[in-house]
Amino acid sequence: MSDLIVLRDAIRRFVSERDWDQFHSPKNLAAALAVEAAELLEPFQWLTEEQSRTLPPQEMEAVRRELADVLIYLVQLADKLNVDLLEAAYAKISENAMKYPVGKAKGSSKKYTDL
Amino acid sequence: MSDLIVLRDAIRRFVSERDWDQFHSPKNLAAALAVEAAELLEPFQWLTEEQSRTLPPQEMEAVRRELADVLIYLVQLADKLNVDLLEAAYAKISENAMKYPVGKAKGSSKKYTDL
Amino acid sequence: MSDLIVLRDAIRRFVSERDWDQFHSPKNLAAALAVEAAELLEPFQWLTEEQSRTLPPQEMEAVRRELADVLIYLVQLADKLNVDLLEAAYAKISENAMKYPVGKAKGSSKKYTDL
Amino acid sequence: MSDLIVLRDAIRRFVSERDWDQFHSPKNLAAALAVEAAELLEPFQWLTEEQSRTLPPQEMEAVRRELADVLIYLVQLADKLNVDLLEAAYAKISENAMKYPVGKAKGSSKKYTDL
Repeated sequence: MSDLIVLRDAIRRFVSERDWDQFHSPKNLAAALAVEAAELLEPFQWLTEEQSRTLPPQEMEAVRRELADVLIYLVQLADKLNVDLLEAAYAKISENAMKYPVGKAKGSSKKYTDL
Repeated sequence: MSDLIVLRDAIRRFVSERDWDQFHSPKNLAAALAVEAAELLEPFQWLTEEQSRTLPPQEMEAVRRELADVLIYLVQLADKLNVDLLEAAYAKISENAMKYPVGKAKGSSKKYTDL
Repeated sequence: MSDLIVLRDAIRRFVSERDWDQFHSPKNLAAALAVEAAELLEPFQWLTEEQSRTLPPQEMEAVRRELADVLIYLVQLADKLNVDLLEAAYAKISENAMKYPVGKAKGSSKKYTDL
Repeated sequence: MSDLIVLRDAIRRFVSERDWDQFHSPKNLAAALAVEAAELLEPFQWLTEEQSRTLPPQEMEAVRRELADVLIYLVQLADKLNVDLLEAAYAKISENAMKYPVGKAKGSSKKYTDL
């Protein structure tokens, strides 16, 4: 069984034991995900790109927790919407591969936008 | 091998072929992740919670793509920071289980904050 | 003189006294603004729309501070990019008025998107 | 009368003519604000800090519109919550001035966090 399905089931149990499902509409989960993703950006916002590669241990630990929060809400939101995350990710990579062919996209900083 | 590691390797190949690694500092990836998470919130922002449970097919397809984008950036950011996402997620669930014991947290809308 | 120009000048002084201008590239300010806007969303994320209309005093105070942070970063980012915020806002309202004519947009929840 | 109050009144008229007030709970406005702030970050995400200082004219025009959107939602959210934005901003600057005294904060990249 997929790792993300096993994780999904662990999260389902956690939520169900606390009777929190009532708060977990897709709308609310999408908001929570956006909030966590922004919290993950926060420790990087004043760093140079170079500094962002080597966080001090304490901040690294906080970032690790925020990464986990994003994954947990992402799995929950996908669960509510019946989306297979892995399948969706591979489909998106295929789509991107056609949108940004190696020949045109190579090394271009315009990449995701004006190609 | 873990599904997320296989996905990570597919993303690594995609990025390497396009020579895009130069843009992918943790700072930039964290910004991209926050942007994608907000795009995922966008289709829900004016809906009621109830409406958010049943999106029309076209919006559902867009949401599926945004979910994929969030996962892809999340995997890339974790890769740059050498974080095992699954391990981090299970550690966070354990932490949350202690922070929000079933007896106190059950059904409380205050949940993630004031408990 | 415009209120926002007076505010801009007060912020300029604050930043200059601390020699923080070196951190305030448009990129960094845009990231900080996104982070603050997400922090402003956080207290609302698990509330019903109805509950969000009447926050308890303590949360109201926190929200007031986050509103201030968003305005402060917005004014700074506009300053760096030489954008007159008020002028831009009125131009956008005019644009929206043409995009969403009263006759078509009235009461429609599709408003900002599919009209 | 304050510029932001005049702007608030223009937005009130725009919203009232379209009967959109029903969608504008503080929760929804806070979500819309976070979405717009992330859209404002998007054009900067792959740029270097240096590049972010001089956007090409077409992107500059898009950024100007996003700055306007953020201000418009910010004014609406403050309106719903009966917050005087200017007053809140000056109060926050005073608070920050005490939290980050010039002597300690000058030139420190740790500024908003560990001081």
